[in-house]
Amino acid sequence: MITKNIQLDEQGRLKHFLSIEGFKRQHLISILDAAEPFANVQEQAVKKVPLLRGKTIVNLFFEASTRTRTTFELAAKRLSADVLNININTSATKKGESLLDMLHNLESMHCDMFVVRHNQSGAAHFIAQHVSPHISVINAGDGCHSHPSQAMLDMFTIRRHKKDFANLKVVIVGDILHSRVARSEMHALTTLGVSEIRVVGPKTLIPTGIDTFGVHVYHNLQEALVDADVIIMLRLQKERMQGALLPSEGEYYQHYGLTEKKLAYAKPDAIVMHPGPINRGVEIASSIADGPQSVILEQVTNGIAIRMAVMSQALGPGGSDSSRTGVNA
Amino acid sequence: MITKNIQLDEQGRLKHFLSIEGFKRQHLISILDAAEPFANVQEQAVKKVPLLRGKTIVNLFFEASTRTRTTFELAAKRLSADVLNININTSATKKGESLLDMLHNLESMHCDMFVVRHNQSGAAHFIAQHVSPHISVINAGDGCHSHPSQAMLDMFTIRRHKKDFANLKVVIVGDILHSRVARSEMHALTTLGVSEIRVVGPKTLIPTGIDTFGVHVYHNLQEALVDADVIIMLRLQKERMQGALLPSEGEYYQHYGLTEKKLAYAKPDAIVMHPGPINRGVEIASSIADGPQSVILEQVTNGIAIRMAVMSQALGPGGSDSSRTGVNA
Amino acid sequence: MITKNIQLDEQGRLKHFLSIEGFKRQHLISILDAAEPFANVQEQAVKKVPLLRGKTIVNLFFEASTRTRTTFELAAKRLSADVLNININTSATKKGESLLDMLHNLESMHCDMFVVRHNQSGAAHFIAQHVSPHISVINAGDGCHSHPSQAMLDMFTIRRHKKDFANLKVVIVGDILHSRVARSEMHALTTLGVSEIRVVGPKTLIPTGIDTFGVHVYHNLQEALVDADVIIMLRLQKERMQGALLPSEGEYYQHYGLTEKKLAYAKPDAIVMHPGPINRGVEIASSIADGPQSVILEQVTNGIAIRMAVMSQALGPGGSDSSRTGVNA
Repeated sequence: MITKNIQLDEQGRLKHFLSIEGFKRQHLISILDAAEPFANVQEQAVKKVPLLRGKTIVNLFFEASTRTRTTFELAAKRLSADVLNININTSATKKGESLLDMLHNLESMHCDMFVVRHNQSGAAHFIAQHVSPHISVINAGDGCHSHPSQAMLDMFTIRRHKKDFANLKVVIVGDILHSRVARSEMHALTTLGVSEIRVVGPKTLIPTGIDTFGVHVYHNLQEALVDADVIIMLRLQKERMQGALLPSEGEYYQHYGLTEKKLAYAKPDAIVMHPGPINRGVEIASSIADGPQSVILEQVTNGIAIRMAVMSQALGPGGSDSSRTGVNA
Repeated sequence: MITKNIQLDEQGRLKHFLSIEGFKRQHLISILDAAEPFANVQEQAVKKVPLLRGKTIVNLFFEASTRTRTTFELAAKRLSADVLNININTSATKKGESLLDMLHNLESMHCDMFVVRHNQSGAAHFIAQHVSPHISVINAGDGCHSHPSQAMLDMFTIRRHKKDFANLKVVIVGDILHSRVARSEMHALTTLGVSEIRVVGPKTLIPTGIDTFGVHVYHNLQEALVDADVIIMLRLQKERMQGALLPSEGEYYQHYGLTEKKLAYAKPDAIVMHPGPINRGVEIASSIADGPQSVILEQVTNGIAIRMAVMSQALGPGGSDSSRTGVNA
Repeated sequence: MITKNIQLDEQGRLKHFLSIEGFKRQHLISILDAAEPFANVQEQAVKKVPLLRGKTIVNLFFEASTRTRTTFELAAKRLSADVLNININTSATKKGESLLDMLHNLESMHCDMFVVRHNQSGAAHFIAQHVSPHISVINAGDGCHSHPSQAMLDMFTIRRHKKDFANLKVVIVGDILHSRVARSEMHALTTLGVSEIRVVGPKTLIPTGIDTFGVHVYHNLQEALVDADVIIMLRLQKERMQGALLPSEGEYYQHYGLTEKKLAYAKPDAIVMHPGPINRGVEIASSIADGPQSVILEQVTNGIAIRMAVMSQALGPGGSDSSRTGVNA
């Protein structure tokens, strides 16, 4: 079946990974399933498979993020791809080269994938629309818009702990307004059939019109946590805020910081997630970040597996370049 | 036959690649021939050959150039070499270490090749004269002097389109004075037997004494383009100019920018080249840069193949370290 | 035998390499012996062994040092490990992430080794105490404290020239006070049974209490050099000094610079060492640095072999992860 979703090729296989929007449940499940064996590869003495040997993956970072770049670089190397790290601030664009000319140059060097990080929403989409057909584009975070591989590693982590998405109560806590992670999570959870999504935060950090996502809005953390299965804490995006949307850090922690006392309102087996890096004593108490219900470091581990899955689905045997039967839209 | 050309070893094989000067026709042809299979490797699913496995290639960049560094890094990785990127501004020279001491240190680590980029003419030559016998040096651009791999990728591109060099009319357009590319092109075209080389640009950008190259000088672009087979546009090296050698960009474009109207003076199958990055609307109209006669992106692709050829001739089996019979001087 | 030395695992095998203190003679000999075959690997056409294929080694540099980073990067690549270079100034710590959270993130990505460079004494120890059991930590220099791989490459160099450590007279010259190299050397030489260690420098650059090391202190270089077998020149750590501990460079050279005339006091076959980068005409005359008794560049070569030895002992088959019998404490 032919689809016009730019993220899928004509056979309905993964081509670009730009946002969760546009994928159906079976696509997301297919990515989660593909990540399972990679999660196991990492446990082995030789954490490397030859799947993408001879492929060239370019980390195209218009916004510095050592942390995110590292996860993609590791994922690519463990698939045996060659990796180029290009930081655009220090590159040819200084010489007045346009973005598109630079991309076409990299394409002409027979690069296979661009992993794009940009501080403007829509940048990865724009690039995907303009590259040659043989290039795959992965969005590694664009402005406030989307961070789909982060959402998928969270879905993977939830599935490992909770098996079935259908009956879960998931709570997303904090700066919903500025969070590309939150936006991607809500799309992924909805697509995977989660029955109840709650968002909670101060009024100034909840976007207007959020009800179109079908989520329940709270302004009181205790109330939001009642009977929760999964708690996703967001990073307080201090550097993204403009003006005085926020009270002091101390006040924020008092109302929206996750403490032992507040966590007790959730189910006893609720898991606590955070995309990192965490602000201890601002969003979350240290005792919880390091406690038995925290899966924060598992998320990091799963992040490598998910990125390996996405890269190999797009570029590997059976990817959009090859003849193996994929998931149809 | 023993040669004293520093660029060849005692068996007449490629040792350093510093400038086109000093090479005879058969050397250049040998490099072009060696690049042919590498151009094909890049089209394959696995774009990698094990030719330089275990060799260490150091990108020694005294002048930042992400673009050039990327092409050498990719070429080295596709030959399976290990690559070290060293940006000299941020390195040990800060601690007062002399250039030669730094080079001798890298030699002692059993590095095999230095790819040198420097803003002073003669830097790569100087380094080649002072390194240990087991090291090969590639000039990746030194001041206004030379950029031989750029010239050779252009020769490769011309040969793919025009077969025989002998009867070609080649026009080089723009800032001849500051262009290391122009200098290397003129040597390469002459050595390969091109019958007519024309250079064209404003008087302030044509070096005095250029007639020693055996080229024809024009100051009117239309006239220079009549019956041309190959048009090599140069980048307007704004950052290299000192003082007011130039009219405004608009005036420059009016006189020396390549437009559809001016291109019509050339042969209908003339190819248009540019070393990049291009300044659209300054040196060249967008419709030509992206049009059917443009081979600008092919040049980028061929650049990887040429660099693989040079690297493998200098270091690979049959290179200056080994016993295979090479090209004799 | 169980040992509580953090640097050894429960079977007495190398786990971390933080300082020479804590190792017995047989440990150091074991590292020297392990380096011998790697010294030979480097002479071969393919300078690479698959020993650490699939392992991930992270260069975690809190203090820039292209030179040191390069040696570890090369050692890791020649063992076929994947290498990540992380410069902490430009990384996630900007976002307020704590050091330990950053380390735990890297651990969760299944990295295997951290090579740590830090300007504070004890940083590598601190990190080793707090990482997960599967991580090895190598100290690549911490403040004024320790630089154990530098000491071991010097021991390797001495053994190659002098065979037996027992009867050697070793002189360490210069800024003992600020030198992590000197500190590590004295521990290594003592542990390996060198009979006479002499340190020489201006009073302001000799630490008080140095007699606890069992070394002889001199303030006159000629006297210290009499009958010396090994002369270790230290770098004048100008950037580490605070205030006016030093006379001018000229005066320093007059008193403590190694010249032909002063070198004549040592044994005729004495070797001259320097950790680099050298300050010609400050610590050492150029004629000696480049002369027949200098082994300064051999030290650089041996540095790769020693780092390959340490990395493979900690991570390789027979390392602290595996079942081969190692050296017992």
